[in-house]
Amino acid sequence: MPNKKRTVFFISDSTAITAETLGHSLLAQFDHVQFHQFTLPFVDSTDKAKEAITIIDEIAKITETKPIVFSTLVNAEIRQVIKNSNCIFFDSIDTFLTPLEKELGMPSSQMVGSYHKLKDNIYDVRMDAVNYALVHDDGITMKNFDTADVILVGVSRSGKTPTCVYLALQFGIFAANYPRTEENFVNKDRKDYAALTLFKKKLFGLTINPARLQKIRSERWPNSRYASLPQCQAEVGMAEALFIAEDIPYINVTMMSVEEIAAHILQFQKLQRRLFT
Amino acid sequence: MPNKKRTVFFISDSTAITAETLGHSLLAQFDHVQFHQFTLPFVDSTDKAKEAITIIDEIAKITETKPIVFSTLVNAEIRQVIKNSNCIFFDSIDTFLTPLEKELGMPSSQMVGSYHKLKDNIYDVRMDAVNYALVHDDGITMKNFDTADVILVGVSRSGKTPTCVYLALQFGIFAANYPRTEENFVNKDRKDYAALTLFKKKLFGLTINPARLQKIRSERWPNSRYASLPQCQAEVGMAEALFIAEDIPYINVTMMSVEEIAAHILQFQKLQRRLFT
Repeated sequence: MPNKKRTVFFISDSTAITAETLGHSLLAQFDHVQFHQFTLPFVDSTDKAKEAITIIDEIAKITETKPIVFSTLVNAEIRQVIKNSNCIFFDSIDTFLTPLEKELGMPSSQMVGSYHKLKDNIYDVRMDAVNYALVHDDGITMKNFDTADVILVGVSRSGKTPTCVYLALQFGIFAANYPRTEENFVNKDRKDYAALTLFKKKLFGLTINPARLQKIRSERWPNSRYASLPQCQAEVGMAEALFIAEDIPYINVTMMSVEEIAAHILQFQKLQRRLFT
Repeated sequence: MPNKKRTVFFISDSTAITAETLGHSLLAQFDHVQFHQFTLPFVDSTDKAKEAITIIDEIAKITETKPIVFSTLVNAEIRQVIKNSNCIFFDSIDTFLTPLEKELGMPSSQMVGSYHKLKDNIYDVRMDAVNYALVHDDGITMKNFDTADVILVGVSRSGKTPTCVYLALQFGIFAANYPRTEENFVNKDRKDYAALTLFKKKLFGLTINPARLQKIRSERWPNSRYASLPQCQAEVGMAEALFIAEDIPYINVTMMSVEEIAAHILQFQKLQRRLFT
């Protein structure tokens, strides 16, 4: 099948993040098409919508193909301006909001950007959770492990830090991270071993294929002992032995994105989201 | 209007993040309804779907109201199992994928979780961008400012760090952050002033209402000089004077979520996303 090219617009009266998320998930189903993507956030007036359609119509003319538009525009008047352009219009507001209004038996507030508008307590939880993830990065301090929702354990570069930060931003989860190094846990007399066993129920292990780990480490530190395959094999082996010996639940993240790792942790540890509840 | 209560499920064969994002953006339009939300990720077999519908049907029975389901289930057979339960089914795959297939003139790959599946280069960009944001948090080091896509300037607790981390995770943007303190910039002989002027085009300012800043700082450090209103007013005043004197673009983030701040920065600085391009 020859590769196709299509232009796609994500248009919103707010950040356009919902339009992008939905659109990307659908476009990911078409491997053979190359998509040129443009995001137009904050289209919150008919004047801005008219600016947008000059771009859309121009591209339609040049490419002789209608651009695809993913819209979360809430205002019906602005939406109509874009719909009148030379495009294929996918509308997640009109499609779902009208039946939802009917089902709930009340009109929606039709508030632009309600979802990503700042809510006081949400902001603070996020700030706190992100700051928490940063303070606890790489086991710098263990003194606040009692307030952690989850403590990730794994070898260096197994994805603990991005996962902690993602859990904080997306769900308001307080995630600490404790690096699994050669010396930790092996000596049960060590202070940190005692500290960690106190919080055993919060521990969750990440493991990774040693060859993949070698590849990740080698990108930044090529030809180092740290990035060598024997070193990666030894560290991963010890980490997995520990997870089994101490009965710490763990997943293999070799083929997982940060979103997938986070979703597995939430599900397995039955963590309550602090955002969107 | 009396407050209503409704149960909502987000169901996916993958992380359910797309279902949550779309669903939350729609539910945010109904202020008067209290939603009990359950996320069921990784429903990737008819057996798991059958487990899900026992929960859905049980809640329908207890509450005497059909639960609302937001689904991104790709597999038609699994989807049908859920659709047969006692629920109101909102389906973003069937609704949009079929017309998209028609428009693109080809079948979709019907790949479960294609969007949040790990792609090699995406993972590395994210890891690198998140690590970059952490290394450069609070201006700890300025030596890699030349690789920054954007450098955020603002007083302590104006939202620089969560924004940097969000830009890294969501878009793969390399965002550094430089704290605006009383002494920076004021003395033009200072080394950091010279360093920053080198990267002037990358600078972007965040300002905030002093009363709001006082509230944020007081939560963590009550009754401190740092959190006092005069201190907040003085710092914000100096930061804004600097932005104007040095012609640094800036936004007031008082009423903005991290998503909104990030979307404004991307748009204003015309930054190219390293993810999803």
